[in-house]
Amino acid sequence: MNSSFEPYYAVIFTSKKSLNDDGYAVMAQEMETLAQQQEGFIGMDSARNEIGITVSYWKTHESIIAWKQHVDHVMAQKMGIEKWYDSYNVRVCKVEREYSFERK
Amino acid sequence: MNSSFEPYYAVIFTSKKSLNDDGYAVMAQEMETLAQQQEGFIGMDSARNEIGITVSYWKTHESIIAWKQHVDHVMAQKMGIEKWYDSYNVRVCKVEREYSFERK
Repeated sequence: MNSSFEPYYAVIFTSKKSLNDDGYAVMAQEMETLAQQQEGFIGMDSARNEIGITVSYWKTHESIIAWKQHVDHVMAQKMGIEKWYDSYNVRVCKVEREYSFERK
Repeated sequence: MNSSFEPYYAVIFTSKKSLNDDGYAVMAQEMETLAQQQEGFIGMDSARNEIGITVSYWKTHESIIAWKQHVDHVMAQKMGIEKWYDSYNVRVCKVEREYSFERK
């Protein structure tokens, strides 16, 4: 644990897709690009098998709120509910500590 | 947002596998089963493409520490570093709020 660790935020988005894939890949790519341009964005990790998990990292809680309310993102969320997702869960989290390993 | 929301913890484990898969699938399954038996365990989500993301959910920070130090888990972590992972990152987070959607 590092005493100088600066907490930041993670949004854990887990989802089950519907059978309707129409337009999904293009929109997902657009939203990833747009998220990267937002104030406070740090990074993003994504993987999908039976479920999809996307974790995005943000400097502040305010930056998460702003991104959720971005007009293009609101439209994408609406289409997600109408077409692409059978279910999803969003968890807003404060990252309190972290550690990592990298093979030399 | 629900004023009666009880915060809990999420551990975000992101990883890149090495080319050495020897014994990995069996150990991963064993660790999932073992984690489910631990005090404070709530649930787990997992997906893998280029990277793997496993998020486990816990009632308290203490339950996360206890699981990290579980003797069989310590052995699995050691083998992960020696063989299975090129890199990984562990983030310990407090879940501050959540919301979800389910198609009716």
